[in-house]
Amino acid sequence: MKLYTYFRSSAAYRVRIALNLKGLPYEASPVHLLRNGGEQLSDAYRAVNPAMLLPTLEDEGNVIGQSLAIIEYLEETRPQTPLLPSNALGRARVRALALTVAADTHPLGNLRVLKYLKGEMALPEEVKLEWQQHWLRAGMATLETLLANDPQTGRYCHGDTPTLADCCLVPQVFGAQRFGVDLAPYPTIMRIHANCAALPAFQSAHPSQQPDAE
Amino acid sequence: MKLYTYFRSSAAYRVRIALNLKGLPYEASPVHLLRNGGEQLSDAYRAVNPAMLLPTLEDEGNVIGQSLAIIEYLEETRPQTPLLPSNALGRARVRALALTVAADTHPLGNLRVLKYLKGEMALPEEVKLEWQQHWLRAGMATLETLLANDPQTGRYCHGDTPTLADCCLVPQVFGAQRFGVDLAPYPTIMRIHANCAALPAFQSAHPSQQPDAE
Repeated sequence: MKLYTYFRSSAAYRVRIALNLKGLPYEASPVHLLRNGGEQLSDAYRAVNPAMLLPTLEDEGNVIGQSLAIIEYLEETRPQTPLLPSNALGRARVRALALTVAADTHPLGNLRVLKYLKGEMALPEEVKLEWQQHWLRAGMATLETLLANDPQTGRYCHGDTPTLADCCLVPQVFGAQRFGVDLAPYPTIMRIHANCAALPAFQSAHPSQQPDAE
Repeated sequence: MKLYTYFRSSAAYRVRIALNLKGLPYEASPVHLLRNGGEQLSDAYRAVNPAMLLPTLEDEGNVIGQSLAIIEYLEETRPQTPLLPSNALGRARVRALALTVAADTHPLGNLRVLKYLKGEMALPEEVKLEWQQHWLRAGMATLETLLANDPQTGRYCHGDTPTLADCCLVPQVFGAQRFGVDLAPYPTIMRIHANCAALPAFQSAHPSQQPDAE
């Protein structure tokens, strides 16, 4: 398998964690989101994934985009070390937690959005940063509430083994730390984050450990 | 089953289509996103879904949030009229199309985002509208590319029966029409939209057909 990835991409980071948790070796093919006007917009990458977004997984010639779709695909084709619970209600909870990050939080602070705020909208740097922090705080607050008030939360987001939800939580915390969000109001998230960070699968997926890290 | 819904909510609209396609009766419990300062922020609704977002499905006392998680749950617990293909690669494609709408397009034009642009950021109405249209066009363009260049696209997004992807496409077109986006550049989307609009399951899920329609 080949993963088109960028070390700091939150969505690529999710898939790297999932691949590592499942013990699946893969070739990392870096796509630099800032260099050359954004390599994800190049003809070469467009030929791989016409959505021109990261990550993309190539599996025996088949091409899959969208981090959550990739992880569900891995779950179905490589069921070892399941990343979804075995019951439908548990799976629904894990997917809802994952979407709280992947649909409600991360898209608002995505690189292309920040570029639009600074470029087309010509907003000053501090307004852009306040935007980023606002949505990061909103997303983290929702996630904290969902995790803190549910007995199904365990050592990780759902019980005592990592799931798809943890694959999303950890990169989101990385993003929040990077943009200076105070994480003290989210003790459950940070407890789970610490438990994840102790696992080699999460450690080797970290942006700093990637071949394209700067 | 009970669905907490708002007639114009894109995410609730997705779930209404899925419930109808599967022939599942449900009780609609309207939550008005604008009235009373936003009923989704009320204590009563917070007690149902602490994420304070729509939709929420209640199924025999169990509460599920996030439209895509709800539809996956329905797919697993009510497998009649499948909304996902039977093979893993097809499912991955349908999920990626759905996420192109639900994660990459819709969150950027969500009510709370528009409120923030007008309120906290104090941007004029026309800048807000240009923001909305920009991300709607970007999302529609990506979806069009993914659909137009793939032989797996059929009468609907994936083959000749409606899937999760169509449950997402139709509400997104409704949103784009509502905010004045020119849809001529997306002929594949509009062809699929017309095919969906001919089906009673899509018709009765339309915002104008809801008990809380205005």
